[in-house]
Amino acid sequence: MRYPQQITDLIENLAKLPGLGRKSATRLAFHILKRPTSEIAALASALLAVKREIHFCSVCHDYTDQDPCSLCSDPKRDSTVICVVESPNDLLAIESSGIFKGRYHVLGGAISPLSGIGPADLYLDDLIARVKNPLPDGSKIQEVLLATGSSPDGEATCSYLLDLLKDIPVKVTKLARGLPVGMDLEFVDQGSLKEALEFRRKI
Amino acid sequence: MRYPQQITDLIENLAKLPGLGRKSATRLAFHILKRPTSEIAALASALLAVKREIHFCSVCHDYTDQDPCSLCSDPKRDSTVICVVESPNDLLAIESSGIFKGRYHVLGGAISPLSGIGPADLYLDDLIARVKNPLPDGSKIQEVLLATGSSPDGEATCSYLLDLLKDIPVKVTKLARGLPVGMDLEFVDQGSLKEALEFRRKI
Repeated sequence: MRYPQQITDLIENLAKLPGLGRKSATRLAFHILKRPTSEIAALASALLAVKREIHFCSVCHDYTDQDPCSLCSDPKRDSTVICVVESPNDLLAIESSGIFKGRYHVLGGAISPLSGIGPADLYLDDLIARVKNPLPDGSKIQEVLLATGSSPDGEATCSYLLDLLKDIPVKVTKLARGLPVGMDLEFVDQGSLKEALEFRRKI
Repeated sequence: MRYPQQITDLIENLAKLPGLGRKSATRLAFHILKRPTSEIAALASALLAVKREIHFCSVCHDYTDQDPCSLCSDPKRDSTVICVVESPNDLLAIESSGIFKGRYHVLGGAISPLSGIGPADLYLDDLIARVKNPLPDGSKIQEVLLATGSSPDGEATCSYLLDLLKDIPVKVTKLARGLPVGMDLEFVDQGSLKEALEFRRKI
């Protein structure tokens, strides 16, 4: 039995989304058939709008609908500190902490030989240029915070960046490792515990 | 931190789909940002196409892009047998068995007092009219196969239909219940086993 072509097309397109097999795509397609047209039209136009209007900021490479993005053009943020992250999601995680008030630089991934991602695939040259060149007001970048993940790929990227930055007179920092907040010691992984002990602080 | 409005809109629209919370909608939105525009445009146009071009067949109430649908207008199918199902999905399940070669009637649900679905919410009047009225070639409906589910709602709908059909001179049948094919006896539910024993067949 064949569905009408329009339904087959929809199922095939939905099945390309991550985490949707053919069966759940079919279920979703029948759900969509039952929803009001206005709701589905809104979804379709939201899909088209992100593809049409969202691009990468030419300065920090975060997603944005203006260029430079709102973070890069916000005069209240400290231009002399750059936080380097792997992805726009990581940027969001840091932003939602509300602590960091500098600028960002999104690498667009982490060095991962297993996935075939090398340094040339990341926005590294731009970062070095941003760090080396004076800012429009003549001041210089004071600090580069390497906020890559604590996965092996993230750590490898961090080391690579450290090497790139070693001849530039700028302070390079990385996120503190240690106990996750709100967790019993018995559940903390060995790696975090090791870092927490090694870098214990005086109180 | 705020995403650009377009991304927020997309997340909100995706989060309305079943099984997608805000977190998975966000993950999906970022996936969509990374996909080629052509792929997302195809998805958007597939969404719009089903809402624009798919409607209910005026005869059997299945989803269709023509009226009457291809099943209702197929001259090779037996017009004198009507299989009554709850939903288009159930129709597909029966069609994919390849056994049934008659016509269908989709009720649009099952009677379910708990969900507030009563007989007036289903396409029952049309069904009775189809069964009572002679076919265009003058012949009459010979058999109505009640293929509602074996859930309590399905069984209730089946009883209700039996009652509606009792004064019409037509053969009324229902799907056989019994052992699911390809299952060890130890895993079969008690209800199926009871039916399998009660309606055991001579071989």
